[in-house]
Amino acid sequence: MALWGGRFEAGVAEVTQEFGASLPVDKHLYKQDIAGSKAHAKMLAAQGIISAEDEQAIAKGLTGIEQDIDAGNFTFDINDEDIHMSIESELTRRIGEAGKRLHTGRSRNDQVATDTRLGVKALAKELMEANLELRHVLVDAAKKYDKVILPGYTHMQHAQPVLLSHHLLAYSWMFARDFTRLKAAFDAADNCPLGAAALAGTSYPLDRQMTAAELGFAGVIPNSLDAVSDRDFLLDLHYAGSVMAMHLSRLSEEIVLWSSSEFGFITLSDSYSTGSSIMPQKKNPDFAELIRGKSGRVYGNLVQLLVTMKGLPLAYNKDLQEDKEGALDTAHTLMQCLSVMAGMISTWTVNEDAMARECGVGHLAATDVADYLAKRGLPFREAHAVVGHLVLMCEKRGCNLEDLPFEVFQEASPLFEHDITEALDIPSIVAARTTEGGTAPAAVAVQLQRAEAQLVVDEGVFGSLTKVVEMGHGAK
Amino acid sequence: MALWGGRFEAGVAEVTQEFGASLPVDKHLYKQDIAGSKAHAKMLAAQGIISAEDEQAIAKGLTGIEQDIDAGNFTFDINDEDIHMSIESELTRRIGEAGKRLHTGRSRNDQVATDTRLGVKALAKELMEANLELRHVLVDAAKKYDKVILPGYTHMQHAQPVLLSHHLLAYSWMFARDFTRLKAAFDAADNCPLGAAALAGTSYPLDRQMTAAELGFAGVIPNSLDAVSDRDFLLDLHYAGSVMAMHLSRLSEEIVLWSSSEFGFITLSDSYSTGSSIMPQKKNPDFAELIRGKSGRVYGNLVQLLVTMKGLPLAYNKDLQEDKEGALDTAHTLMQCLSVMAGMISTWTVNEDAMARECGVGHLAATDVADYLAKRGLPFREAHAVVGHLVLMCEKRGCNLEDLPFEVFQEASPLFEHDITEALDIPSIVAARTTEGGTAPAAVAVQLQRAEAQLVVDEGVFGSLTKVVEMGHGAK
Amino acid sequence: MALWGGRFEAGVAEVTQEFGASLPVDKHLYKQDIAGSKAHAKMLAAQGIISAEDEQAIAKGLTGIEQDIDAGNFTFDINDEDIHMSIESELTRRIGEAGKRLHTGRSRNDQVATDTRLGVKALAKELMEANLELRHVLVDAAKKYDKVILPGYTHMQHAQPVLLSHHLLAYSWMFARDFTRLKAAFDAADNCPLGAAALAGTSYPLDRQMTAAELGFAGVIPNSLDAVSDRDFLLDLHYAGSVMAMHLSRLSEEIVLWSSSEFGFITLSDSYSTGSSIMPQKKNPDFAELIRGKSGRVYGNLVQLLVTMKGLPLAYNKDLQEDKEGALDTAHTLMQCLSVMAGMISTWTVNEDAMARECGVGHLAATDVADYLAKRGLPFREAHAVVGHLVLMCEKRGCNLEDLPFEVFQEASPLFEHDITEALDIPSIVAARTTEGGTAPAAVAVQLQRAEAQLVVDEGVFGSLTKVVEMGHGAK
Amino acid sequence: MALWGGRFEAGVAEVTQEFGASLPVDKHLYKQDIAGSKAHAKMLAAQGIISAEDEQAIAKGLTGIEQDIDAGNFTFDINDEDIHMSIESELTRRIGEAGKRLHTGRSRNDQVATDTRLGVKALAKELMEANLELRHVLVDAAKKYDKVILPGYTHMQHAQPVLLSHHLLAYSWMFARDFTRLKAAFDAADNCPLGAAALAGTSYPLDRQMTAAELGFAGVIPNSLDAVSDRDFLLDLHYAGSVMAMHLSRLSEEIVLWSSSEFGFITLSDSYSTGSSIMPQKKNPDFAELIRGKSGRVYGNLVQLLVTMKGLPLAYNKDLQEDKEGALDTAHTLMQCLSVMAGMISTWTVNEDAMARECGVGHLAATDVADYLAKRGLPFREAHAVVGHLVLMCEKRGCNLEDLPFEVFQEASPLFEHDITEALDIPSIVAARTTEGGTAPAAVAVQLQRAEAQLVVDEGVFGSLTKVVEMGHGAK
Repeated sequence: MALWGGRFEAGVAEVTQEFGASLPVDKHLYKQDIAGSKAHAKMLAAQGIISAEDEQAIAKGLTGIEQDIDAGNFTFDINDEDIHMSIESELTRRIGEAGKRLHTGRSRNDQVATDTRLGVKALAKELMEANLELRHVLVDAAKKYDKVILPGYTHMQHAQPVLLSHHLLAYSWMFARDFTRLKAAFDAADNCPLGAAALAGTSYPLDRQMTAAELGFAGVIPNSLDAVSDRDFLLDLHYAGSVMAMHLSRLSEEIVLWSSSEFGFITLSDSYSTGSSIMPQKKNPDFAELIRGKSGRVYGNLVQLLVTMKGLPLAYNKDLQEDKEGALDTAHTLMQCLSVMAGMISTWTVNEDAMARECGVGHLAATDVADYLAKRGLPFREAHAVVGHLVLMCEKRGCNLEDLPFEVFQEASPLFEHDITEALDIPSIVAARTTEGGTAPAAVAVQLQRAEAQLVVDEGVFGSLTKVVEMGHGAK
Repeated sequence: MALWGGRFEAGVAEVTQEFGASLPVDKHLYKQDIAGSKAHAKMLAAQGIISAEDEQAIAKGLTGIEQDIDAGNFTFDINDEDIHMSIESELTRRIGEAGKRLHTGRSRNDQVATDTRLGVKALAKELMEANLELRHVLVDAAKKYDKVILPGYTHMQHAQPVLLSHHLLAYSWMFARDFTRLKAAFDAADNCPLGAAALAGTSYPLDRQMTAAELGFAGVIPNSLDAVSDRDFLLDLHYAGSVMAMHLSRLSEEIVLWSSSEFGFITLSDSYSTGSSIMPQKKNPDFAELIRGKSGRVYGNLVQLLVTMKGLPLAYNKDLQEDKEGALDTAHTLMQCLSVMAGMISTWTVNEDAMARECGVGHLAATDVADYLAKRGLPFREAHAVVGHLVLMCEKRGCNLEDLPFEVFQEASPLFEHDITEALDIPSIVAARTTEGGTAPAAVAVQLQRAEAQLVVDEGVFGSLTKVVEMGHGAK
Repeated sequence: MALWGGRFEAGVAEVTQEFGASLPVDKHLYKQDIAGSKAHAKMLAAQGIISAEDEQAIAKGLTGIEQDIDAGNFTFDINDEDIHMSIESELTRRIGEAGKRLHTGRSRNDQVATDTRLGVKALAKELMEANLELRHVLVDAAKKYDKVILPGYTHMQHAQPVLLSHHLLAYSWMFARDFTRLKAAFDAADNCPLGAAALAGTSYPLDRQMTAAELGFAGVIPNSLDAVSDRDFLLDLHYAGSVMAMHLSRLSEEIVLWSSSEFGFITLSDSYSTGSSIMPQKKNPDFAELIRGKSGRVYGNLVQLLVTMKGLPLAYNKDLQEDKEGALDTAHTLMQCLSVMAGMISTWTVNEDAMARECGVGHLAATDVADYLAKRGLPFREAHAVVGHLVLMCEKRGCNLEDLPFEVFQEASPLFEHDITEALDIPSIVAARTTEGGTAPAAVAVQLQRAEAQLVVDEGVFGSLTKVVEMGHGAK
Repeated sequence: MALWGGRFEAGVAEVTQEFGASLPVDKHLYKQDIAGSKAHAKMLAAQGIISAEDEQAIAKGLTGIEQDIDAGNFTFDINDEDIHMSIESELTRRIGEAGKRLHTGRSRNDQVATDTRLGVKALAKELMEANLELRHVLVDAAKKYDKVILPGYTHMQHAQPVLLSHHLLAYSWMFARDFTRLKAAFDAADNCPLGAAALAGTSYPLDRQMTAAELGFAGVIPNSLDAVSDRDFLLDLHYAGSVMAMHLSRLSEEIVLWSSSEFGFITLSDSYSTGSSIMPQKKNPDFAELIRGKSGRVYGNLVQLLVTMKGLPLAYNKDLQEDKEGALDTAHTLMQCLSVMAGMISTWTVNEDAMARECGVGHLAATDVADYLAKRGLPFREAHAVVGHLVLMCEKRGCNLEDLPFEVFQEASPLFEHDITEALDIPSIVAARTTEGGTAPAAVAVQLQRAEAQLVVDEGVFGSLTKVVEMGHGAK
C-alpha cells in the first residue's frame, strides 16, 4: 500500500485485497521479473542514472532472492499485491536505499508487460519442444507401420484403404503447422516494452536497446502506449494452443474409437489406461478422453482474453491483469497433453488383423472399380452409377463387392474383364495411389522424407530462438 | 491403483498421474462427498444391505475425516486420484472392513455426479445471497439519490435527463433476473443421481428416494444413463453467472466512466481505489475495471464446458472430469465481484453538481420541445425536423437549446408560445415522464416499491430452498 | 434519412449505408412490427392522443402493408435503414398525415425492443413445439424397442447391458430439460417495453398495460432504461438453444457411430443419407454429422451476443443492433436439426442382431459377477479384484467371461456356485437392475410412464403460453 | 441426386434438402470453383487422361457459365446441393459427354478444399489491402496532429500528456501486427489439395504440381488425408480477423468516448453520424458503436469453427460444410469496418482546445515532479510519496498541481527549486520523453518514419503475394 500511499487517506477494503492481488498468478513469473530488474539496473548504471555500487547491490540482492524462491524458501505476502512489489520490497529490506532506486524510469505497466513477454517466450519454447517430440513419435510410428493397411474413413464410413503410416503422418503435418503458430507467438512476444514506463516513455536517458539486448529480446517496441497496452502476443499463444488442442482432440477421438471393442484397432498400454471402481473388466482410454475434453479449457482461455480485451481504451487498464492465468493454464495443459499423447502412441499395440478385417467390409474397392470403367472410356459419372448399382446388389445379398461373381460384373457393364480382380485387391488399391501425397507405399515413403525434413527445419528454427528466461518452479 | 487393480498388469505412467488426477479440484467438494457417503451408508443399512454396525462405523469414521479436513489436518495424496478414493481409502485405514462395504451399489460415476450437484446447489445459494445483498445496496442507493438528476444517455450522447434512482434501479432489475437464473441452476442441480451406479442402475435393492431425501434433494433423476452423463446443471450455473458478469461489466463500465475527470460524476472511496507506482497523482477505479475484465473469465468458463460436452456419446466419459474447476472459479469470481461492487457503491460519493452541470449540455430538452409542438397538432415527424433545425442553429452559435431567444423559437414555428420555457426546464422534463416505468419521481417511487417487493419475493424463494451442504474450506 | 434530418447538414457516407442498415435482418420481424404499431395506435386513440379516424386509417394501412409483404409484393428499400422506417414511411405514403402521428410517444428504441421480444416469443414457441415432437419420436421409439438390448458404454468401452429403450429415454429427459429452458426464454421475453420511448418514458399519457395486453404480453417492463437496453431474453434463447444443440450433437455422434460398419447398430433410411461423388459404395450419415457440426454455429451465436453486450453503458447503444441475426439463425438452425433428427430416428432400422452380438463382447457381466461375490459376503473392493483377475485371464485366452469353465471361477473364489451362470446371462443382468431409473424392463416401463407424463405436462405448458405473433415468411 | 444415385433406392427427405445444401453459401465461390475445374481439366489433358478437345470444350463451357453468373444471369437450383454440382451439371447440359469427364481423378472433398483455399486467399488479400489503407489514414492523421497534446490515460484516469500523433500511431502498430496475421492466414491457405481426391489420392497419373502452379498456389499439400480434412487456414483467417476486430473495438470505444459531450475531443462528420427518430438533438457515433459491437460477431465465428472442428476423426466429415459461412461473414464484416473506420477518421474534426483543457485537469505533471526530486537524489519511492501528498492537498483545495504556490512545494521538500515550473509545463513534459518510442515530438517523428517504413515493407509483401482468384459478386 505504501506503494502509492501519498494521496490516499484510507486503506483498501479488506474484500478487495485478494480480489485485486495478482500475486497468486504472477509469482510464477519470478525469474522473469528478476531478470527484467537486473537488466534495467544494469542499464541505469551504464547510463549513469544510478551508481555502479547500487547496481551491484541490486544484482546481488536479486540473485539472493531468486535462489531463495527457487529453493522454496520464500514466503509471498498477499499484501504485496503483485510479484513486482514482492520482490522490490524484499530487495529494499535486504539492501536498503539502493532498492528504492531500482524503479527509476520504470513503471509496473512496462515491467509487467516485460515479465509477461519473457514468460510467453519461455512457454512457447517449451511447447515447441514438446511439439517436436510428439512429431518424432508420430514419424517413428509411421516408419514402423509402413505395411499396415486400415480403412480410410469419410463420414465415419469405410471409404478407401490407406496405410497406417499415411494416417499418422496426416497428424504430423497438423502438428507441424502448430509449430509455426507457436513460433509466431514467440516472435510476437519477442520485443521489449521496458522504457515505455507508465505509458508515455520517460525523461530519463534510458537505453532501451541495451535492456532489450540484455534480456534476449529481438527488438524494442516502437510505441510506448502500445508497449503497455498490447496483449496480442498472449492471444497468439492462446490461438496456437487452441488449434493444437483441436488437433489433439481429433487424434484422441480416433484413439478412443480405435480402442473400442467394435473397432479393436489398437490396445493401449496398461500404463496409459485406467479401470473402473465398479466394473472389474473395464480398461478405459481415460487419457485420450481427457485430452479431448481439455480442448474446451484451451478454447475457453482464448475466449476469456479476447473478451477481456474487447473495447478497452488506451493505455493500461486493470482488466489486463486478467491476462496471465489463462496462458499459464493453457501452456501447462498442453505440455501435459503433448507428453501423454506421445507416451500413449509409443506404447500402444496395433492390431493389424482387426484393421485388415475391416478392410474387407464396406466395399473399399468401389472407387477403383468405377475408375476401372472410366479408364476404359465410360464417363466417370456413369461408371459411378454402375458401381453404385453393384453395391446395392451386394447390400441385399449381404456380401462385399469382391464376392460378386464375374458374370454379375459383366452384366452390369461389358467393359468389365477378368483383370477386374486386381481393382478389387486391397493392397493393389493402396499401391495404385501413387500421386504426390497419395497413400501408395512409394508415395508415403517420399512423404515421410518430407516430414523428417520438416522436423529438421523446425529443429533448426528451435535452435535459433532468441534467449529465453526459463520458467521457475519455486513459487508455491 | 488398487482401485481397479485386478485386470491390470502394469502401473500407470508417471506422466499421467498428475494429468489424470482430479483431486486438486474435487477435494474442495469434501463435505459433499462425505454427506453423500453417509446418506448412502444409512440407506444401505436401512435396506439391510450392510449391517447397522457397519453403518455406524462408517458414519463415525467419516465424521472424523471431515473434522480433520475442516481443521486443515488432512494431507491429500495425489495417488488417490480423486476425492472419493482419498476419503474411502482413509476410511478403510481407520475402520477396516466396513469401509470396503461402503461402495456397494454405487459407482464413482453416480458418486461424483452427486457431489457435483450438491456443490452446485451450495454455490448457487451463495451467489443468490450475494445477489440479494447487491440489490439491497442498489435499492438503498436509489432511495438515497431520489432527487439527483443526471443526463440519460443513448449512444453515449446526452439524450434526456433521468433520476439517478431510476438509473440505479435499472441495474437492480437486471440483477433480479440473474436471481431467477441462479434459482434455475439450483433447481436443475436439485435431483439425486445416487443409485444410477456406473450407468445402468444396480441389482441391489436401493431406496433412491431415501438417499435423495437424506441429502436434501428435491427429487430423483429418472434415468440412470442420464444421471451419470448429465452436466446441464453446471452449464446453467455458468450461464446464470455469465449474464450476471455481463451486467456487472456494464455497471463497472459506468463506474469507470463516471470516475473519470471528464465525467466526474462520482468519487470512489479510497478503500475502493488504488494508486500508481510511478504516477503519484493517480487514483484508479481498479476494482471496477477488474470486475469488467472478469466477464471474460466467466464467459470463458461457460465456453469451456459447452465445448467439452459437445459430441460426447453416452454415458460417462472422462472428458466430464473437466466439469468442476470452471464452476468453482466462476462462483468464486462472482462472489468477489458482487461483494466488491456492493462495497464500491455503498461507499462512493455522488457529485450532484457535476451531474447537474452536464444536464445543461447537449440539448436534453429537445424531445420535449418536439412533443410540445406535436401536442399542439404538428405531426411528430415534422415537429422533430423543426427542433432538429433549432439544435443545428445552437451548435453553430455554441449555445444550448434553452439559451435561444423566444423569437427564434417563434420563427421556427408559430406554435411556440411563452410556456415553452417549461418544456426547457430539466426538473420539469423529468417530472413529466409519469408513464409506468418512466423517470418522473412519482413513477420512480412506484417502481422502487416494486423493486422492494421483488426483493421480498426473492428472499422468500431463497428461504425456501431445499437443504444445502455448504462448501467446506478446509481442503488446502 | 429525413428521419432525423433537422440537425444534419451532410448526408451519410455511402459506405455506411449498408453497414448501418439493419433492414436485411429485421425485415423478418415485419409482422411483429406491424402488430406493435397497431397496438400502439389503438392505445393512442383510446387515450385520446390521436383521433379514432387516424387510428382506423393506420390500422387499415398497416393491414394492407402486411398483406403485401405476406404475398411477397413488397420491395424493401435499404435507404429506409430498418423495418420500422420501411413500414412507417410506406404507411405515410399510403395514408398521409395520420401515418406521421403513429410514432407519437414512441421511439425506435422501445419499438425495436418490442418487435424483438415478440419475435423471441414466436421463435421460442416454434422450438418448443419441435422439441415436443422430437420427444414424442423418442418415446415412441423407446416403446418400440423395449426388448432390444445393447451394450451400455462408459469411456466408449462396453460397460453393462442396457435396454435400447432406456438409452433413448435418456435423450428424452435431456430434451425435456431443454423445453424448460426454452420456456424460460419465452417468459423472459414476455414483458412489454412499449412506453419506455427513447429511454426515459414519455410525457404522453400512455397506457402501457393496454398495449401490453393488446400484444399478448404477460406484463410491462418496470424500468424504461432497462426496457430499451435489456437483451437478456435473447441470451436466454441462445443459451437454451446451445444446450439443446449440445444434446443434439451427442445424439448425432451416436448415430454416426452406430451407422459405422464397425458398430452396425442402425441403418439410416436412404431418405436420410447421402452418397459420394467419387465413391459409389458410400452411404453417409451426412445429416447427423451436420447436426453435430451445427452445435458450433449455435454456440458461436451465443458467444457473439455475450461479447457484444459486454461493458455497454446504459441505455441504448447501436451495438445492440447486432442482436437479432444470431437469434434468427439459431432458431432456424435448431428447427431444422430437430425436424431432421425426428425424421432420422423414426425411419431408421435397428439391427438387433448387431447389438446382441456386441453384448457378447467385453465382459458385460463383470459387475454382476463381482456383486454376486459381494452379496455372498466378500467386501465389494475385494470382489472387484477377483473379477478383474478373471477378466485378465479371459483377455489372455481371447475369450469372454461367460466362456470360462466353472472350475476357473471356483479357483478364483470358493464363493462361486453353479448359479453363477445366471449372473452371466445378459437378459438376466438387465432384468436385475430394478432400482428406480434402472434399466430393468420393469423399471423402464415406469420411467416411460414418467416421460409420457412429462410430455403431457409440457404440452399443457405449451398450450397455456401467452399470445404470440407468429413469424412471417413474406420478407425476401 | 443423380450424383450418387446408384446404390440408393429412396430419394432424400424433403426436410433435408435445404438442410444439407451448401449452395446458398458456396455459390459465392463460383469463380474459385471454375478456376479449379479449368486447371484440373488442363492438367488432365496434359497428362493424356482426357482429350484436348474435351479440355477445350470444358474450358469454353466453364467460361460461358462464369460470364453468365458474373452477369447475374444464372439461376442456382437448390437441388444441385452445392456449387460443384451446380456448375458441373450445367456444364454437362451445355457441352455433353465431355462435362462428365471433368470429375475424373477428383472428388468433391479435394474440390471444395481447393475452392475454399482459393477463397481464403482472396479474402485475406482484400483484408490486407483494407488494412493498409486504414494504416495510411492513421499515419496521415499522425502527421497532421503532430502538435496536438491530449491527456494520456491509464485506468481511464489522466496519467501523463501525450501527442495525439503518438496515440494514433499506437493503433497503426496494432494494425501492422494484424497485417502479419492476415499474411499468415494467406500463407496457410496457399497450398493446393487437388489430387487428394476423396481422401487417399488417386490411381490416375495426376500432376499435382501443375494444377497447383496453374492456380497460383505456392505449393502442394503433402498428405491426401490432411488435404481434405484440414481447415486450419480458415481458423487462421478467423483468428487474424478476431484480433483485428478487437483492435477496432478499442479504437471505436475511444471514438465513442471522445465524441461524448463530456470529452468533446472530436466531432464526427455528419456523414459518419446518425440521429434519433425521437430526439431531434442527437448526433450519434453509430458506426463506431457498430464496429465495436461487431467484434462479437467476429469472435463468434471463430468460436463456431473451433467448436465444429473439435473431436472430428479423419478424414472428411460433413461437419466441415459449416466452414465457409462464418469466414465469408467475418471477411465481409471486417471489410466494412476497416473502410468505415478509415472514413470516420479522415473526416473527423479534432477539438484541440478540449484536449488542451483536459490537460489542465488531473495533475498530469505529477510523475515529472517526482522525477524532479528523484533526479536530485531522493529515492524514487520517497519522491512518489512527497508528490502524492501534494496531490492530496490539491484535491482538498480543489486546485491542480501547477496551481500550488512555490512555498508549498518547498515545504514538502527542500529539494524543490524555482525551476520546478518547467516540470509542471505540459508541452515541456511531453518534450522530455525522448526515449525511443516515447511521446516527445522528436521521438514521435522517428517513430513515424518507422511506421511509414513498415507500411512500405508490408506493401512489398502485399505486392508479392501469389496469384489470387478474386471473389465474384454475381451469385445472388
